[in-house]
Amino acid sequence: MPQVTVGIAGATGYTGAELLRLLLAHPHAKATVLTSNSHVGKAVTSVLPQFAGAVSGNFAKTEAASLRECDVVFSCLPHGAAAQLVHQLHQASPAQRIIDLSADLRLKDAQLYTQWYKQPHAAPDLLSQAVYGQVELFRPLLRGATLIANPGCYPTGALLALAPLVRLGLSDGPFILDSKSGVSGAGKEAREDLHFPEMHDALRAYAIGTHRHTPEIEQGLRALGGSGAVTFTPHLVPMSRGILTTAYAPAPAGLTQEQLTKAYHKLYDGEPFVQLVDQPDVKNVRGSNQVHVSATLVERTRTIIAVSALDNLVKGAAGQAIQGMNVALGLPESDGLPRSGATP
Amino acid sequence: MPQVTVGIAGATGYTGAELLRLLLAHPHAKATVLTSNSHVGKAVTSVLPQFAGAVSGNFAKTEAASLRECDVVFSCLPHGAAAQLVHQLHQASPAQRIIDLSADLRLKDAQLYTQWYKQPHAAPDLLSQAVYGQVELFRPLLRGATLIANPGCYPTGALLALAPLVRLGLSDGPFILDSKSGVSGAGKEAREDLHFPEMHDALRAYAIGTHRHTPEIEQGLRALGGSGAVTFTPHLVPMSRGILTTAYAPAPAGLTQEQLTKAYHKLYDGEPFVQLVDQPDVKNVRGSNQVHVSATLVERTRTIIAVSALDNLVKGAAGQAIQGMNVALGLPESDGLPRSGATP
Amino acid sequence: MPQVTVGIAGATGYTGAELLRLLLAHPHAKATVLTSNSHVGKAVTSVLPQFAGAVSGNFAKTEAASLRECDVVFSCLPHGAAAQLVHQLHQASPAQRIIDLSADLRLKDAQLYTQWYKQPHAAPDLLSQAVYGQVELFRPLLRGATLIANPGCYPTGALLALAPLVRLGLSDGPFILDSKSGVSGAGKEAREDLHFPEMHDALRAYAIGTHRHTPEIEQGLRALGGSGAVTFTPHLVPMSRGILTTAYAPAPAGLTQEQLTKAYHKLYDGEPFVQLVDQPDVKNVRGSNQVHVSATLVERTRTIIAVSALDNLVKGAAGQAIQGMNVALGLPESDGLPRSGATP
Amino acid sequence: MPQVTVGIAGATGYTGAELLRLLLAHPHAKATVLTSNSHVGKAVTSVLPQFAGAVSGNFAKTEAASLRECDVVFSCLPHGAAAQLVHQLHQASPAQRIIDLSADLRLKDAQLYTQWYKQPHAAPDLLSQAVYGQVELFRPLLRGATLIANPGCYPTGALLALAPLVRLGLSDGPFILDSKSGVSGAGKEAREDLHFPEMHDALRAYAIGTHRHTPEIEQGLRALGGSGAVTFTPHLVPMSRGILTTAYAPAPAGLTQEQLTKAYHKLYDGEPFVQLVDQPDVKNVRGSNQVHVSATLVERTRTIIAVSALDNLVKGAAGQAIQGMNVALGLPESDGLPRSGATP
Repeated sequence: MPQVTVGIAGATGYTGAELLRLLLAHPHAKATVLTSNSHVGKAVTSVLPQFAGAVSGNFAKTEAASLRECDVVFSCLPHGAAAQLVHQLHQASPAQRIIDLSADLRLKDAQLYTQWYKQPHAAPDLLSQAVYGQVELFRPLLRGATLIANPGCYPTGALLALAPLVRLGLSDGPFILDSKSGVSGAGKEAREDLHFPEMHDALRAYAIGTHRHTPEIEQGLRALGGSGAVTFTPHLVPMSRGILTTAYAPAPAGLTQEQLTKAYHKLYDGEPFVQLVDQPDVKNVRGSNQVHVSATLVERTRTIIAVSALDNLVKGAAGQAIQGMNVALGLPESDGLPRSGATP
Repeated sequence: MPQVTVGIAGATGYTGAELLRLLLAHPHAKATVLTSNSHVGKAVTSVLPQFAGAVSGNFAKTEAASLRECDVVFSCLPHGAAAQLVHQLHQASPAQRIIDLSADLRLKDAQLYTQWYKQPHAAPDLLSQAVYGQVELFRPLLRGATLIANPGCYPTGALLALAPLVRLGLSDGPFILDSKSGVSGAGKEAREDLHFPEMHDALRAYAIGTHRHTPEIEQGLRALGGSGAVTFTPHLVPMSRGILTTAYAPAPAGLTQEQLTKAYHKLYDGEPFVQLVDQPDVKNVRGSNQVHVSATLVERTRTIIAVSALDNLVKGAAGQAIQGMNVALGLPESDGLPRSGATP
Repeated sequence: MPQVTVGIAGATGYTGAELLRLLLAHPHAKATVLTSNSHVGKAVTSVLPQFAGAVSGNFAKTEAASLRECDVVFSCLPHGAAAQLVHQLHQASPAQRIIDLSADLRLKDAQLYTQWYKQPHAAPDLLSQAVYGQVELFRPLLRGATLIANPGCYPTGALLALAPLVRLGLSDGPFILDSKSGVSGAGKEAREDLHFPEMHDALRAYAIGTHRHTPEIEQGLRALGGSGAVTFTPHLVPMSRGILTTAYAPAPAGLTQEQLTKAYHKLYDGEPFVQLVDQPDVKNVRGSNQVHVSATLVERTRTIIAVSALDNLVKGAAGQAIQGMNVALGLPESDGLPRSGATP
Repeated sequence: MPQVTVGIAGATGYTGAELLRLLLAHPHAKATVLTSNSHVGKAVTSVLPQFAGAVSGNFAKTEAASLRECDVVFSCLPHGAAAQLVHQLHQASPAQRIIDLSADLRLKDAQLYTQWYKQPHAAPDLLSQAVYGQVELFRPLLRGATLIANPGCYPTGALLALAPLVRLGLSDGPFILDSKSGVSGAGKEAREDLHFPEMHDALRAYAIGTHRHTPEIEQGLRALGGSGAVTFTPHLVPMSRGILTTAYAPAPAGLTQEQLTKAYHKLYDGEPFVQLVDQPDVKNVRGSNQVHVSATLVERTRTIIAVSALDNLVKGAAGQAIQGMNVALGLPESDGLPRSGATP
């Protein structure tokens, strides 16, 4: 099998560096171009010392010209800037595989984007061409895809927790999604509220009712056959990686725990990266591409509680992006993706 | 004002030691007897080195005889054992003030106790005499009380988040309570799942649909005028102290954010230990007796999201117990209780 | 006893806020003026929500005029700015008690200051008047003092670990000081290397051979009768508070463990805030003004290993400053100072 | 290249599970037998849920019979039990490759073992046959080896920090080694002092002057040509993985920083798993087999400060064991070994 050459735009952030880490173990793909805006020309290992002895070379400038020769480009740029780069690359070379890890290609409706992201979309024509890269739920659409919108970290956990309910018609909400995230999801830039002493031993909800991943989750549920709005509350937890999502749904009359469990098995048995477990815990998926899921029927209140745990930088970002690339290119889906958590 | 003498039964656990720490700063009460089952006769500071230079003396045996002379007894024994000790003390001296920090005096219905705690109640006759010690909500009942059931840590956060909705008739549920707790709430005994490397960087839900604080929360809501069952999911978060509770309630038609905020102010303005804040965070209440609360109306889904943050060892245990003692004895309510968090 | 009025210059940083927290429990002193450069006019609790319900009022401007009426001023300004403010206050009112928590008044030699702080001293005339505020070692000098240089966090732990050796002539080095600090010691300003995900699960030495607290430690040892240079290596550890210092010294021929232990008892028995313990641990002093100390003779290599643990924001900063104020004013030395750690 | 079959004795502990995790990515070796004493017959994933979807099969009994067919056996048993198993396997099949991760094969002198481990050695005849598996320092001895003593976690960091000094004759001590370790090094069994709330926000030295890794470090230094005793102080730090060792050595007269740096380059340039970096930090080696090393000359006190950072479960245990196996078997040395840290 020929080696796929990969470019990473914005490789100094957490998702860019995680892509680089995972690709080191990929048998059929190799990161050949790493770009940066603020570190152009610097040695990769001077900015990312965790790669000392593993990666050589310097950062190229973040621009289309740097990435033209790559078979695949992963864009880890912020939203807005991402759409511009993807647009340029796609115009110049429509066959180049582009996987965008920002929000720019995720929402099909540019109006919705403007409403939640408070700015006009930079390249709305891309939206109809991009495939939403949640592999387990939309795998057939990904085969051969050239433009892939990599899902958000929260939506990945939310959709995988709820998909069996919606797709198999067990519950259509209203859903309450209470998510707890490690801090790397907020990015690498220093912020006063994420200064170590401000976040250690801290725990708080944020963006109540206004988080931008909300419309992405709702769009995903509709694609699975659902209808309803979700109430989504993200929280920050003092750890670096991991998202635990606790999802609440009304149980239909007559549903039993046995039927509920069966539904989750039906959707996920055989999936390499979704595991039904007794007690999902972010520690068990750390560093891996796995999602651990459980579903419990609380009889007293007829409420279904589905829980999912994932590593926001792997299955919630870089890992799922590689999984999507593998499917798009027809490579073995698990290539380069750790299947076990690095515990403890 | 005369000095009140205080005995702490089971003073080596986390709540017992926290009582001791807080009482060191109490102007009108002094811990004179500390008991232990496993450390009888040992110097207090040999077991609890954080008190070196602050506390002298040895542990007495945990039995009624040790505690007879104290004006006030705080029992920090496990449920079951607690009821037995309280029963003995109360029989021998009905005027002695006893504040029980276990679950044994909390539920008014002994059947409910048996159902959730999987054992018969050791002294069901005490239940009708005990006053539920959530000070802000039931202060008048506490004045002069001799037997006080100190509330559970989760119920304290849950009830203070929901009380304005229920008492003022804004919402009667169904409520979803998603709580996240530091690990000290599980007690001091070593457990395999709470071994440091197993809990650090970990995050998980537990006891889904079965946690014993559920009936206590429901009983509290009924006492406030409500009716409904709650769905309660506790989680463990990698920090030592703190509980954040995110409560979800359906909003009544027409309710505005302004009215919602007003309701919370109505109930809590003037309270020394409940503060309405923009973003409750456990770091801001660490070590203090404060509860930080917010209430947000999510218009899109007509859902009220109330959040409360407290220190499970202070307002969730030892602090509230002292606050209850102060009210019962007619002492200034804030005596011995830190009013600001030890941040960072 | 009349109430002492206190001003805190730079009250929004970690040491300023810790002073405010501790003073809330001081029976004879009250913070009446809080200043800030960036938050002038804002409500204190809008910047420091941990004081909601405990502190009212707004920040004044950081300038001498704001602080003139206070009996005591604690300056928590950065070095350079601190000397300027202290100079102005002292010129205008030589009897006002000023306790400076920066490095500006610590070194007696302005040349040394210039060498290590890479800038000329802003008010060298103050140096001869200021008293070094390490209470246990220099208590007599503090009585009645008007200008107090509050010791650095690392020097406090280092000097208390080594003082019995030097003052009693057991060892004069060469000393190796390996210190491990929580992150709050680096201040409240967001920094890329102290961003939560960069510091969590991290551990590193820094400023090897160049840390500015080195000459302060050496000056302190000379004041105790010693001579030698120290090799001092600070480390950052993923916790918010606490410094553990492991000090290595050559043992004199013939010294026994018994004699060593006796020396430490000789210096520290009766001290309210230094405790000899088996195993100093920062968790046991958290939030308190205590220093826990141990001293071990390693026979095999004839090396003395002294260990000290303290809370860098309390005994390492705000607590020691209040202790110094108490001594200077003739107040009971322990007023306002927690004597037990808030564990866990 | 044929697939090597591997057995792991004691696979439920932290090092056993880490071996299993790393071997999943090894192109030429496969874990075929996993043994346990307490979980015989149970599904691997029921005990180690981090392997859900990655590993199938059950635990075999920990006994020689279970492991006879494996080409290679890694023993992760505690010391004492380890020597017995290794002895049985080696007697039955002298050509079987055995890598022991306990201390039992490390010390060449059985007397020394008895002295430090407080028990007679269970199979002293093995000592002369075993090769000490620190790959970078003793690689030639490992080629073709059948019995390998995998180095301790602390000795690995200590020896790699000091080796250039000793082997190139720059300094022969006396050395002071101040090591800071994550908690997984203490094993998986629950202990009161390692209960999460007891270790979180905690920091302490332990086993001052008495840690069992001391003679192993000294033996290693002698093998490198040195002579002197070391003073070694381990500390526990609130993180799961990682050891940072700060080593202090007297600098010979005339040595410059340039010469010092050159010496480290001489020994380590070209090594795949030792990197010279500006500031070693355990976060940059987490999950990888890398050791990051720096060496600084402090002119003022003529002291060399060498710092090393490693992941105690990888380079400090399982990773080095696999590296040793690779060398012994003539496989590519880096097979199955992550070369970059999983940061953050």
